[in-house]
Amino acid sequence: MNDVTIVGSVAFDDLEMPSGTFEDVLGGAATYASIAASLMARPRLVGVVGNDFGDEHLAMLKERGIDCAGLERANGKTFRWRGRYSKDLGSRETLDTQLNVFADFKPKLPATYTESPFVLLGNIHPALQLDVLAQVKGKTPKLIAADTMNLWIASEPKLLGELIEKIDLLVINDEEAKQLAGIDNIARAAAEIRRKYSLQHKDRPLRLIVKKGEHGALLFDDAGPFFAPAYPLEEVRDPTGAGDTFAGGVMGYLAHVGDASPLSLRRAIFHGSALGSFCVEDIGTRRLAAISKADYRARIEAFARFVDYGGDLWDKAGVD
Amino acid sequence: MNDVTIVGSVAFDDLEMPSGTFEDVLGGAATYASIAASLMARPRLVGVVGNDFGDEHLAMLKERGIDCAGLERANGKTFRWRGRYSKDLGSRETLDTQLNVFADFKPKLPATYTESPFVLLGNIHPALQLDVLAQVKGKTPKLIAADTMNLWIASEPKLLGELIEKIDLLVINDEEAKQLAGIDNIARAAAEIRRKYSLQHKDRPLRLIVKKGEHGALLFDDAGPFFAPAYPLEEVRDPTGAGDTFAGGVMGYLAHVGDASPLSLRRAIFHGSALGSFCVEDIGTRRLAAISKADYRARIEAFARFVDYGGDLWDKAGVD
Repeated sequence: MNDVTIVGSVAFDDLEMPSGTFEDVLGGAATYASIAASLMARPRLVGVVGNDFGDEHLAMLKERGIDCAGLERANGKTFRWRGRYSKDLGSRETLDTQLNVFADFKPKLPATYTESPFVLLGNIHPALQLDVLAQVKGKTPKLIAADTMNLWIASEPKLLGELIEKIDLLVINDEEAKQLAGIDNIARAAAEIRRKYSLQHKDRPLRLIVKKGEHGALLFDDAGPFFAPAYPLEEVRDPTGAGDTFAGGVMGYLAHVGDASPLSLRRAIFHGSALGSFCVEDIGTRRLAAISKADYRARIEAFARFVDYGGDLWDKAGVD
Repeated sequence: MNDVTIVGSVAFDDLEMPSGTFEDVLGGAATYASIAASLMARPRLVGVVGNDFGDEHLAMLKERGIDCAGLERANGKTFRWRGRYSKDLGSRETLDTQLNVFADFKPKLPATYTESPFVLLGNIHPALQLDVLAQVKGKTPKLIAADTMNLWIASEPKLLGELIEKIDLLVINDEEAKQLAGIDNIARAAAEIRRKYSLQHKDRPLRLIVKKGEHGALLFDDAGPFFAPAYPLEEVRDPTGAGDTFAGGVMGYLAHVGDASPLSLRRAIFHGSALGSFCVEDIGTRRLAAISKADYRARIEAFARFVDYGGDLWDKAGVD
């Protein structure tokens, strides 16, 4: 079982949902991504929590095989986010953000982590993402992936550009991709991002995953564009963390198979999407942390049926 | 080569696009659907045009092998629609609608048409769709499909219900599906539509295709849900008629292979989407009418690569 180092936020979320208000919900990008990756690989978590981070949360993470040696405990309170979702869960507004111990977060990789062949840099300040990269530079991981957000695209374009030129895989959503490229069409935006940031590493051109939420995900690499849908659910309870779960699932699958070939990356997107579909079925990480192997297999198999057309699109058509 | 009878509007459109204004553009649901179906089958067109419908349009349709015996020429002007698209082509407003000869349209099937094993009832008043159905009742076509719109869902629920209980395949967009079911989640809306209208024909339960535009299309039938994406284009010039082209392509493929099995229907959706992707590349039917066999094959093959993950999602994952 391969390692995947995952850097990012660990948080408590207060969620005002149409179905009720849920407070002190364990969240954060690195939490969702690590739990997702733990289905298939050994995640090595890098983050910071405060004195209020209960042992039961740490125990839950460790039970799932997540290495928490890089989860620093600092004096103060854990990062906290409060948000309110719209009735159809299609949008949300931030009511409050308290960075707390996250404000002074300086990610430090334990020595064992620097050997991880896969690294996921969650959405934090690009300067911190670059700091982490500098710590893994002694080894050559098989794949370094990073997420980012509209804030850093707008406020830190230079640092973000430096980062993107050093990673293998950028995982962002469609609005962010359009913003980063300054182009409104997603296919052209993706081509422009790959062109612009691949200058520094021509031997391993940048790959790009564009997340479209309920509308699936696109992959742009040298094998050409690829698409996988989101799994159609009859009920969604909480979309929080779905994108981070997706990224963690992608990296977990790659770590499991031990390569980052174009075909593995395409399959990894299905696994990320499958785990994302579990994530949104309940509040916080509740459903994600309770997936059995049988649940997972059934979802993956249902997913495969969902896109199965039996191949052979042309031969039977034989247009005259 | 099998026949497919296609009933619906033939029109002239005046299109105010961000790229310019285009007037007297040949359009209408039956026009787009017939041209799309003509790539793979022999469409038998049923519609009405006025004295202003030039011979060059008729010649273009006939050149494509479209049977125009059911295209009535009435005294007056052809149906005309004028619309203005938003800058990103994501929405449009109707500026003017002149029904003209379409106002008194009473579809009449030439005797030869009633033998078509496939029938597509384009979006017209459900009473007219029922009239057409009555004319094909002597034979049992392999598949009868119908489109409809928000107007008929709201104003003619009883007649529309009668129609849906008599067809095999309903092809509508996601907003219409949610409206028809009164349910906001598409998976549950689809299940409700299939339950509600399948009472009258338990031996051949209703199948449902939900069009999501640039976000692809869903199929709901007894084989379980299926999804195919839209093809990612670097430039879209005119979305008019894409949905009708899609439906015509689906029916054209089914007519070509001569069956309506679950697997054929899944493949048909890719063909409908591929033809829809050509449609939007230029104004009106311009691109659609100019597709070569080589163009079509290349698009279908690119489409297959776009969703190809090499199968085998689970075995390699082997989650422990």
